[in-house]
Amino acid sequence: MKVLSREEMWEAVTLDDVMDAIEDSYSIHKKGNYTMPDRFIASRGKNMMLYMPCFLEQFIGTKMLAEFPDNPQRGLPYLNGLMILNEADTGLPCAIMNGSVLTAMRTGAVGGVAIRYLASESAQSVGLVGCGMQGLHQILYACAVRPIRDIYLFDGYNKDYPAFIKKLSDRLGRPDIQIHACSSVNELVKQSDILISATQATDPVYPDDEDLLRGKCFVAIGSWRPERRELPDAVSRLVSQIYTELPYACEETGDLRIPLESGVLPKEKVKYMEDLI
Amino acid sequence: MKVLSREEMWEAVTLDDVMDAIEDSYSIHKKGNYTMPDRFIASRGKNMMLYMPCFLEQFIGTKMLAEFPDNPQRGLPYLNGLMILNEADTGLPCAIMNGSVLTAMRTGAVGGVAIRYLASESAQSVGLVGCGMQGLHQILYACAVRPIRDIYLFDGYNKDYPAFIKKLSDRLGRPDIQIHACSSVNELVKQSDILISATQATDPVYPDDEDLLRGKCFVAIGSWRPERRELPDAVSRLVSQIYTELPYACEETGDLRIPLESGVLPKEKVKYMEDLI
Repeated sequence: MKVLSREEMWEAVTLDDVMDAIEDSYSIHKKGNYTMPDRFIASRGKNMMLYMPCFLEQFIGTKMLAEFPDNPQRGLPYLNGLMILNEADTGLPCAIMNGSVLTAMRTGAVGGVAIRYLASESAQSVGLVGCGMQGLHQILYACAVRPIRDIYLFDGYNKDYPAFIKKLSDRLGRPDIQIHACSSVNELVKQSDILISATQATDPVYPDDEDLLRGKCFVAIGSWRPERRELPDAVSRLVSQIYTELPYACEETGDLRIPLESGVLPKEKVKYMEDLI
Repeated sequence: MKVLSREEMWEAVTLDDVMDAIEDSYSIHKKGNYTMPDRFIASRGKNMMLYMPCFLEQFIGTKMLAEFPDNPQRGLPYLNGLMILNEADTGLPCAIMNGSVLTAMRTGAVGGVAIRYLASESAQSVGLVGCGMQGLHQILYACAVRPIRDIYLFDGYNKDYPAFIKKLSDRLGRPDIQIHACSSVNELVKQSDILISATQATDPVYPDDEDLLRGKCFVAIGSWRPERRELPDAVSRLVSQIYTELPYACEETGDLRIPLESGVLPKEKVKYMEDLI
């Protein structure tokens, strides 16, 4: 049995490997070639342990998550967990991985695959609203799939850009790419071909201005609750399609739920990644 | 997070530590100081993954088992698994252990605790019917709690005593203890103060003879199905008490179910380990 540390996980695969795996997972989902029971939740008080097994052809993956609401007050992550792989034909455990690293890899790669298929081939600039760990990984993957020359950053809360730029450039290892901190979202939008938001925002992070937003490719990963949104109505009016992973996203994320309910986003514009690939 | 190998697990604790832990677990169970939801089963065809979480004061333990019925045909264990410990206050994973080693430790120690409390203090001989891995561990613990000088072995199927004696004496590391292979169960019973059975038997492994069995302490661990039994009716007639772990054992094991149903074992004689300690 292999136990992979944080570093070993990042060394074991390239960014392209992870994006290819994401594409494979879309294709497995589309073919229905898996068995995935509902997740199992064990709880004591407000603390929860979640077990999420999935049987695939070669492996059985179990994501085991601990959700401890008091953790952030102690400087610990709200969610943490492990990914355990067993061989599908024998059930023998074969690998254990850090769940947080895997989630960062996966979420970053999902954005990367979206950019692979949806952004202009010649996009040379990417803007990031929300300079946290999720955002950092989004940028890594964006730079792996498009000939990015400039990265623009904006964060409404954390203004310690030098620290984030240091972390990002260390991880990127690409001295040819310029990283700029912006004083406003408008400045960031104007400079960037691709716009990524990775925030906890409840209100749109971009102005509701079609002229400003026209021609851009948006990746919005922060809005995972029905009452949260990152994209203004202007995006719904401008785009020909919005791609998401699964139908329940239309209820789960405010970026789809809110414009669908108000009617500004027609249901026909919502498409699925697995149908694109 | 610690990942303990088979060897590290055996090095990390003494036999007495494991038996003390078993006694602690009885006391925790008696006090009700735990939260344990029903086990969760995910299956594809006949293959199953089982998740068994339990919240305790300091830790959350999750036993994760794979039950693959075709494995024995391939020389692999029917059951295999992992034990995962998370901190109870933060949910952070802190240790991963080999489930088979833990099961062997646990099952052996349960027999050891029974002997601690129920066998004569001066018992110097122990007999084992069923020379497999479970039986080997039973003997290790028996020798840790009583001044054993002689071990007697009998197996109805596997007659390769030299190989088993070699394994057992290596693990025991006690050249002062003599190990004998017996040609019959009767010979084994006559020689032994404590009698341990660890078989897959469906019929009693000892003769139904009160005179032969009188005055012995019995540990029967093999009978974990309603139709299997290791102990003859004579044992029910002779003993003042039979101790088990949990009430459902009265239905789950033939050693209790069969004599209870026939009436040879009065319900009042069945007691629980947690009440003894």
